[in-house]
Amino acid sequence: MSANPADSASARDTGCARESVRIQAYMRDGFAARDDTLAVERALEIHVAGAEPLITMRTPGADAELTAGLMHGEGVIRSRDDIVYLRAAPGEADVIRLMLKPEARARLDRVERNTLATSACGVCGKPSFSPPTPGARQPTQAEPGRVAPALLLSLPDRLRAEQGVFESTGGIHAAGLFDSQGELLSVREDVGRHNALDKLIGAALLADRLPLSDCIVMLSGRASYELLQKSVMAGVPIVCAVSAPSSYAVTLAEQFGVTLVGFLRGDRFNVYTHAERVAGAT
Amino acid sequence: MSANPADSASARDTGCARESVRIQAYMRDGFAARDDTLAVERALEIHVAGAEPLITMRTPGADAELTAGLMHGEGVIRSRDDIVYLRAAPGEADVIRLMLKPEARARLDRVERNTLATSACGVCGKPSFSPPTPGARQPTQAEPGRVAPALLLSLPDRLRAEQGVFESTGGIHAAGLFDSQGELLSVREDVGRHNALDKLIGAALLADRLPLSDCIVMLSGRASYELLQKSVMAGVPIVCAVSAPSSYAVTLAEQFGVTLVGFLRGDRFNVYTHAERVAGAT
Repeated sequence: MSANPADSASARDTGCARESVRIQAYMRDGFAARDDTLAVERALEIHVAGAEPLITMRTPGADAELTAGLMHGEGVIRSRDDIVYLRAAPGEADVIRLMLKPEARARLDRVERNTLATSACGVCGKPSFSPPTPGARQPTQAEPGRVAPALLLSLPDRLRAEQGVFESTGGIHAAGLFDSQGELLSVREDVGRHNALDKLIGAALLADRLPLSDCIVMLSGRASYELLQKSVMAGVPIVCAVSAPSSYAVTLAEQFGVTLVGFLRGDRFNVYTHAERVAGAT
Repeated sequence: MSANPADSASARDTGCARESVRIQAYMRDGFAARDDTLAVERALEIHVAGAEPLITMRTPGADAELTAGLMHGEGVIRSRDDIVYLRAAPGEADVIRLMLKPEARARLDRVERNTLATSACGVCGKPSFSPPTPGARQPTQAEPGRVAPALLLSLPDRLRAEQGVFESTGGIHAAGLFDSQGELLSVREDVGRHNALDKLIGAALLADRLPLSDCIVMLSGRASYELLQKSVMAGVPIVCAVSAPSSYAVTLAEQFGVTLVGFLRGDRFNVYTHAERVAGAT
């Protein structure tokens, strides 16, 4: 029960973890290996006494606050008095234990009864976190050859040029599908970043074009883990993003053989994993 | 079964809806009323034959592709052959009907069995979409007086100045809590935008500081509907975002009396709802 919002000493503690990785950074004259810092993304298990555990992805830190806020947003916890205890599980970094008073516990039951299993989010709702298994990746058929940095650098502008709704609203995510020559195949948009990629991959599936093993996916925002999961499931070998990848996205890309490119904008980009598919990187 | 990703004619159809709203736009010398365009955000019900319906928020358009992609990402649909039919429900804009072949249907059962109710996402997992009810809003106590445009314009830089992880990773969302004088009370960060706000509101709850009826919330990204829902539940009267609001965020803000400010950056911002709390707006 710390974390007083009026306590300016705690204002700078934004409760967030980061980690360092080795990357290949491209900038005009070529590649250089350097260290880069990633925001950490990891599953938190919320063990509510007398109920099934809940799972959410999050950046570790401020887990008690996250749990309290999440339960408040759903109307389960109305005030601090609804909480019997809320504390980290000893020795387990990603588990938090919550006991609610009976009235609040009853409200949780109502939320749960009104809640259905769905794969919509791709993140929440799983009792145990299960990334795609190696068998889930489609066999790679026509792998692209090594792609040139200039081809990658051209993708963001071409994605943006196709974005109809973004131009007028500025409030939308896009996902683009390119072939290994850099030809644009399709673009989809949505307010939800995973929806845009679902639409893109769904269109390919409906056209019987999976796996996308000779394609490049370009994302207008960040590369979070669920976007990598969806790309792996569709057999995409190269995933590029305008902004940063999360740490778990990098882990998945490394594990499933995906070349992950981040901060692809202007005349530069970073290769986080499997740089062997990018000409000039080592 | 249209939507061939190699069909360049369809490449420009990014499958996205937008809508127009009347706003108060501030820019240096004052306010002007003008029309603004929003990306639409609305719930889609996926009715799978023989199963409970699934719900996801999305930008309307390309709903069949979205459904196919979402089911592929979860390993339920592996190819087009798994689909018996996938089509919009006649006369219902936000309902799509899916019938799967038995093997795929069995995979959906396994996903559902492995999936637990959770409020983590705040979006998915609800069989019927339920925005907060008016009763859910805490009674407003010390409402802030009218805030000056200069105060609002100062918030983004002060939020950024406190963002520790963003500086080093560029990959994180932040939510900041300010009082009505513009004093920074707390900042929280996370890779997930709703997590950052959950942490912020959770910290206030744990400090027994709810409702936040004399506070301003500042968001580093877009204002999607679930961020407004969480703010309404916490009694926040003014919500500001660096980027665009979604259409449903505007609807919620209007309905629950929240002043919603978007595109707050540099020397400008837009007031989407309840402009009566901003000095000079009409």
